[in-house]
Amino acid sequence: MLAYFGPQGTFTEQAARGFASPQEELVPFDTVPAALAAARSGATQWACVPVENSVEGAVPATMDALAEGEPLVAVAEAVLPVRFSVLARPGHGRVRTVASHPHALAQVRHWLAEHLPSAEVVSTASTAAAARAVLNGDFDAAVSAPVAVRHYPLEVLATDVADVRDAKTRFLVVRPPGALPEPTGHDRTSVVCTAPDRVGVLADLLAELALRGINLTRIESRPTKGRLGEYRFYIDLDGHVSEPGVGDALAALHRHCPETRFLGSYPKAEPGGPVAGNEEFVAAAEWLSDVRRGRGA
Amino acid sequence: MLAYFGPQGTFTEQAARGFASPQEELVPFDTVPAALAAARSGATQWACVPVENSVEGAVPATMDALAEGEPLVAVAEAVLPVRFSVLARPGHGRVRTVASHPHALAQVRHWLAEHLPSAEVVSTASTAAAARAVLNGDFDAAVSAPVAVRHYPLEVLATDVADVRDAKTRFLVVRPPGALPEPTGHDRTSVVCTAPDRVGVLADLLAELALRGINLTRIESRPTKGRLGEYRFYIDLDGHVSEPGVGDALAALHRHCPETRFLGSYPKAEPGGPVAGNEEFVAAAEWLSDVRRGRGA
Repeated sequence: MLAYFGPQGTFTEQAARGFASPQEELVPFDTVPAALAAARSGATQWACVPVENSVEGAVPATMDALAEGEPLVAVAEAVLPVRFSVLARPGHGRVRTVASHPHALAQVRHWLAEHLPSAEVVSTASTAAAARAVLNGDFDAAVSAPVAVRHYPLEVLATDVADVRDAKTRFLVVRPPGALPEPTGHDRTSVVCTAPDRVGVLADLLAELALRGINLTRIESRPTKGRLGEYRFYIDLDGHVSEPGVGDALAALHRHCPETRFLGSYPKAEPGGPVAGNEEFVAAAEWLSDVRRGRGA
Repeated sequence: MLAYFGPQGTFTEQAARGFASPQEELVPFDTVPAALAAARSGATQWACVPVENSVEGAVPATMDALAEGEPLVAVAEAVLPVRFSVLARPGHGRVRTVASHPHALAQVRHWLAEHLPSAEVVSTASTAAAARAVLNGDFDAAVSAPVAVRHYPLEVLATDVADVRDAKTRFLVVRPPGALPEPTGHDRTSVVCTAPDRVGVLADLLAELALRGINLTRIESRPTKGRLGEYRFYIDLDGHVSEPGVGDALAALHRHCPETRFLGSYPKAEPGGPVAGNEEFVAAAEWLSDVRRGRGA
């Protein structure tokens, strides 16, 4: 069973389907913390949640919930293009009303002005809620995630709808700590470091990565809730914790910042980014081992 | 005239009112880019836009729009607590429906469960749209920004409503480059650096700040649109560009990253954070000047 931030028919479900086996049961939850709680308690094996530029929000909630409470570790990521389908009731007449989440509507504004200029635009709690409301006869059309047609027998008026062509959303599949995914050579590692707000703490952390030739793919700072003057740094980097360079770098982060939490090493959804060399780490460790045993200098 | 991300009655208007003089005309715009375009063209003197944890979204749009196009510079920031007012039609009966933006509804879920457990919850495009719909008789109550009652003659059922007590939103007031606000001793400076995605580029930038004792208050990375393998780093730091230490640091950022854009030095809305010492920069500059003129060593 895989928990996801619902309802059914949203981009998060679409991301979850990309990961799940065909037989797997997918269970929608109302909130990100509720989906994560299901994975933490063992009620489900995994949870799929948005972590970056989500159409329907909830990203800050995800980041906070991963940094606090029982640890969860990512085993996969999904990157989806933000492309909507426009769905209508079969046999509908002229489209007078079109509904979706405000963030989705903001991303198809030009398309609507061109293709449905006279339609009234109505906001709903999610893109899927819009599709359901169309099925119920409340509105004529919905701007939805492509996966919505799995749940709602609606007519597809248009696909691949987006004003901005290269917008993307990113999701993680997480579960409690266990055996890590095997390294593939194209992996990403996520960590969150909680540190007191002193000058230079983040520069120290990033210098440890740079000194080891490790590429940072994302960083975001957020103040911790309730503990004044403390920050969390969410760091994504290229490589797998089982690689010597990445492992050495994470140990260095932990030396600077004991409240460093491992959020997973998992295959990148999209290729690219330089891969740090590991040979010199292996050679250096062998040399040190020889020196310590009196076999070299 | 001050442009803001509308509609009337939202948190962004509330932030704009804290900055504007009482006589100032405030003009709502449908989107963040439209509000910024008004300030860029001179149609309005200023624009007020959300930059962090906004209730109604649009923050990524703000960040992209400030980094691109004609430069705009912040002259003030506003930090508002996320506390809602619940508004109803005067003379209403039992509250059967309550409306707001999905993000606002997510932040008052517990309050609604306790105080209006049987009310149906409906999403709208903004918190202000909910208030307007209540006035029109579409719904019984709205979860809105406190400022909404200025525009909609509704009964205040509750104020200071929030499930999480310490959530905050942050806004900037921007205008085209011109005379900077005077330093106050409690200022923040914002810059955005666009850099090729090479290992260690951000570590280099942050080391320049740390070496000068300059405190970072926020960092966020975003890939640039359209230019593959390039990142933007949005950096907020303590201090004013007119201070020797901050100025020296910004010049260093520009040496590493020619595409560094100054987004403003402005008084911090909330006090706190260490202030970097400037005396040693002044003393060092005087020493260097003496050395160069043959008057010291």
